[in-house]
Order: sequence, then C-alpha cells, then structure tokens
Amino acid sequence: MKKYNFNAGPAILPREVIDGTMYAVNGYDGLSLMEISHRSKEFGGILKDTVSLFRELLDVPYGYSVIFLGGGASLQFCMVPYNLLETRAAYLNTGSWAKKAMKEAKFFGDVVEVASSEDSDYTFIPKDYAIPTDVDYFHVTTNNTIFGTELFTDIYSPVPLVADMSSDIFSRPVDVGKYGLIYGGVQKNLGTAGLAFVVVRDDILGKVSRSIPTMLDYGTHIKAGSLYNTPPVVPIYSVFKNLEWIKSVGGVGEINARNRRKAALLYDAIDASRIFRGTASVGDRSLMNVCFVMKDEYKELEGRFADYVSARGVVGIKGHRSVGGFRASLYNALPEEYVGVLVSLMKESEREVA
Amino acid sequence: MKKYNFNAGPAILPREVIDGTMYAVNGYDGLSLMEISHRSKEFGGILKDTVSLFRELLDVPYGYSVIFLGGGASLQFCMVPYNLLETRAAYLNTGSWAKKAMKEAKFFGDVVEVASSEDSDYTFIPKDYAIPTDVDYFHVTTNNTIFGTELFTDIYSPVPLVADMSSDIFSRPVDVGKYGLIYGGVQKNLGTAGLAFVVVRDDILGKVSRSIPTMLDYGTHIKAGSLYNTPPVVPIYSVFKNLEWIKSVGGVGEINARNRRKAALLYDAIDASRIFRGTASVGDRSLMNVCFVMKDEYKELEGRFADYVSARGVVGIKGHRSVGGFRASLYNALPEEYVGVLVSLMKESEREVA
Repeated sequence: MKKYNFNAGPAILPREVIDGTMYAVNGYDGLSLMEISHRSKEFGGILKDTVSLFRELLDVPYGYSVIFLGGGASLQFCMVPYNLLETRAAYLNTGSWAKKAMKEAKFFGDVVEVASSEDSDYTFIPKDYAIPTDVDYFHVTTNNTIFGTELFTDIYSPVPLVADMSSDIFSRPVDVGKYGLIYGGVQKNLGTAGLAFVVVRDDILGKVSRSIPTMLDYGTHIKAGSLYNTPPVVPIYSVFKNLEWIKSVGGVGEINARNRRKAALLYDAIDASRIFRGTASVGDRSLMNVCFVMKDEYKELEGRFADYVSARGVVGIKGHRSVGGFRASLYNALPEEYVGVLVSLMKESEREVA
Repeated sequence: MKKYNFNAGPAILPREVIDGTMYAVNGYDGLSLMEISHRSKEFGGILKDTVSLFRELLDVPYGYSVIFLGGGASLQFCMVPYNLLETRAAYLNTGSWAKKAMKEAKFFGDVVEVASSEDSDYTFIPKDYAIPTDVDYFHVTTNNTIFGTELFTDIYSPVPLVADMSSDIFSRPVDVGKYGLIYGGVQKNLGTAGLAFVVVRDDILGKVSRSIPTMLDYGTHIKAGSLYNTPPVVPIYSVFKNLEWIKSVGGVGEINARNRRKAALLYDAIDASRIFRGTASVGDRSLMNVCFVMKDEYKELEGRFADYVSARGVVGIKGHRSVGGFRASLYNALPEEYVGVLVSLMKESEREVA
C-alpha cells in the first residue's frame, strides 16, 4: 500500500535522498560509504561540498562558520550556553523544546524568560516583550513542532540572536546576518538522524571565561572543519543529497512557495470543516506542523478518524503524546499531492458523520 | 577492481551489514528506515533487539545498563569524568587516545597518570604500576589503533575500571563484571560512524556532587532507554545487523579465534621478512591494528610498496599521519583471505628488492 508519510521527525525525505544514500551505502568506488575513512579524499570532498551547498542555499554571509556535529539539537541545548553564556541569557518560552533549552542554560548561568505562552498551552508566539540588553544572547525556537506554531520573522535583537531551527531550516529564506547562531538537528528537513548543524558568527565565540571540554567547544570543530573526530558519515551524506535536491528544485525560495501552498490547502480545509478545528493561533500557524483536533461535539470520533486514514496509508498524523489530537507534518520533502489526499480523507470523514 | 579494505575506522563491515542497512534505507515496511519515527514500534523493536543482542553476545551481567548515544568516543572522554570524577581519577597513558581522554578529565578534577609509554613512542603497554585506591576510577584504552598495541587482560582494579574499547569491542570475550564502565565509538568493529555505546555498572553512577547537563548525564539515557532524544537511527540499525552477523558466525569466541589466526599470519610474515619490521613490542601486539615499517636500509622503498599494493586493490594501510609507516587493520569483518593477499604482496615486494 502506498504510504503518505506525515511523520514529525524522523520524517519524509525526497526519494532522491533515499536512493542516493542507498547507492552510496551499497558501494562508493568499490567500498561502502560506511567503510571509507572520514579522512579519505572521497569523504573529504563530500563534506566540503555539503558545507559549500549549505552556505550557498542558505546564503550564509562571510564571517560565519558552518559546522556539523554528532548528536542532535538536544546536545546543542547545553553547548550553546557552554560557549556563550557568561552571566545571563534570555529565552522566549514558546514550547517544550524552548523549555528544554532553557533548562540546560540554567546549568551555566541566569536565565531570563522574556515571555511565555505556556499558560495558553503554547497556542501562540508571544510578541509583546523587550529583549534585555544586559544578557549574553537571546534564544528563540523558530518552529514549535509539538504545538504547531512558527516564528517567521528574523527579528532584530540588540544581543546575539540564537535560534533552534531544527524543524524549519531550509523551509524558507533566512536573513542569517540577523543571527549570532543557528542550530538544529537534521532529522526533520535535512537528513537522517544523528547529526546537528551549527551556523555561528565567529566573533561571538571565545568570550566566556569558563574552560570548555574539547568536544563541547565550537572552536574545536570550526578549526578542524567538522573533522576533529570521526563525523557521522551517513547522516552527512544524506544532508548532502538533500541540499542537492533543494538546489535542483530551485532553492529555498521555491521550497518556501511549495510549503506555503501545502499549508494553505490543509489550514483552509480545517477552517472550512464542521468537525475539525486548528489549535494554533491563526497568525502563528506553522507551515511545518499543522496541529488540529476534532471539535468538542465530535471528540469521540478521533479514534475512528485515526483508524480510517491509517487504513488508507496515512502515517504519522497522531498528535504528540503530550497534547493529543492530530499533527500533519508538511516538511520540505512532502509532496503537495499528499496534502490533497489527507484533505480528501478529512472531507470524506465529515460526510460520513453528516 | 576488488578492494581489500584495511582501513582503521570507519572500517570494513560484513557484507551482510551493508546489504541489510541498504535494504532498510530503501524501504522498511513501505517507508525508508530514515523516515520512520524513532518512537514507532518498528524502530522500538530494532533498538530493543540491538540492546538485547549486545548484552547476550558480550555476556553483560545483571546490574549493568547498555546505552547508545549520538556522537562518538571523543564525547565520552568528557562524559566519563562529568559523571564519575569527584576529586581525582587515574589514567594509563598508552597512546594518543588515552592522552586525549586524560586531557578532558583535567577539566573536572585531578588526573594521576599511573604509567606511560609515551617516551618509547607508545610501543608497549606499561605493566609495572599500582592502581591508586584514592581515585574515583582507573581508565584504560584497551586497543591503541595508532601504535598497534592492545591490552588483552581484564585487569583487577580496586576502583571502578573504565575502558575505552572503541577499536576492540566484540573482538574477544570480555569479563564485563571486572569493569565499572566500558565505552566506545561503533565505527571500527560495530557499525557506521556517529554512535557510541556505553556499558555501565549502575551503582557507580549518581555519586558526583556536580550538576550534570541533561544530555551529558548517563542517567538520562539509561532512564529513557536510549530514547531521550532522537537517536542515530541508521548507525543503530547497522550495529543491529552486525550483532546478528556476529551471532550467526558463532559469537565472540569464534570471532576471537579468527582474529588470532589473521593477526598471527601477518605478524609471522613481518617477523620472517627481510625488509619489514613490526613496531609494537611483541607481547603487546594488537590483534586489531598491525603496525609495521620498512627496515631502515629499505626505508626509501615505503612509497613504492604503498603504490604497489594500492595498484592491486589494497586500501587503507598507510600508517596514522602521526607515526608514518604502515598499519593494516584486521577488524572482525576482515576476511582471513585478505590477510593472505597482503602477505603475498609483501613477499612479492621482498623478492623484487632481492
């Protein structure tokens, strides 16, 4: 049966990325990608091309480094303050991931929560706040996978702006120059799990007085060009193939146009529905993760709807275990056609209920 | 051309591991392994089976946890002292990796170097030392990839024994009960890069007074069964396939018998050679990494020999950039036949010189 993969991450990847990775695992110049030295000229070339495509497609300015690190974004929650937090840092609390990031910062200094939507179940992104000027950096989570909200603005910050873009990197053009550091896990919009990317303005590093263990020091990896230790070879290769794919379809602008169309199709269907309703505040609705529930009077039908779409090949639209309902993730690789399929199934369900 | 892969890591893997990973990347129940949720029952089953095979094949006793973590052994160099070092720790300095591990421990407390072979270019493993009893743990590197020495004894230690077994894990039976903690990167004898394993006796954890960032705390990953955050899905799968392979050929005992035969074949050829000589002290010769050079009078022929074997499909026998010469890595997956090929080429070279 054809599968329609709406998983929240690890998530759908372009077929070109899967095929490309598969061929490389099978054999890359006679040896599997999994068997070649990370210091070979073959892998060196792949890594160089990956960094260079990343810079090109995201339009990373001079003065910024792009590095790839083992592990995922969760490790960055502590590496960011390890490298940047001298006395205090400011965080915008927009969801579970933002809160986890804040928790780790508290191991290293004071944390100012400049605003929070926690009391409203994180249904919106707070806008009415001032960024303190006496902090080392200001941290935002640009897309909140669990609650389906997204911060689309590259905001102006008087202190280095740090952004977790795990789930919306390469989904839209970003004015990188407005950020001090951008990081994320790759397993949603970029590749297979086990890798994080970090884009950092070089001049914000080296300012904390604490000593930093070698592997947790961004400087180590910048100096070594992401080859201080053996990097996650297969995840890097999958990112390389994905960046090639993004370029082949027309770059981040085209990807963004597609993402806007896909999200509009689904949100319009939800808004027009008698039985479904969206959970996120309309102005902050994520293009990546569309969260919806059944209206109160139809609540008991949620299980039936889940079974109905699942029997027709729809995968991964169960809401996160902490919030329930449904979540359809529309990452870059998700074809517009899949959204059409989901919308049709929603309409059919509605007719059955009528 | 047929390739004979003697790479030091990432290194040769059994064809069953490459094929199995390739098939899973292509499609696992209709979706690529790279696209399924780490919380799906499919991946949950894989992770559970991986841990369970690991425990079975290494004979891990009750009271020990087995976890898989993103990144490699280098991150463990700092996680070990983060979790275990309260005041001071003892290290055996047997090579570059041991020294790097010591360097990270110094960020967290005092480090006692109980013995070192650095002055002799790490050609042997020091044996004449006493393990202090007033330290939090004693750290050894069981196999020194760069210098070709190996510690085969599961030594008795009055304090928790911590071992980096990155390059000889599953190459021989280990008396796990003698260790407090065993860790390593997987990319030499277990799978594709980007993953570390940790085997830890539960009762040695939770004793340091410092606060530990969530991701760097072994307790986090033990409690969450290696699913606190998104784990490196493909590397874990490759380890799973490798453990299946180890079991299928007869387990660690059989693997060890093969490794002994392979190493004996190559060391015997080196010892019988007029033009080559081994660099490691005979009693400490590694079964995993065989380091050799050309005798002084033939030194200028090293480049010619490298070209000669390379033209015949031999890959990865250049010595580490810090020591030069040659290194043939004979990890578990390397067929005995490959050693025969290398030995023949060495003998042919010798005849040419004569």
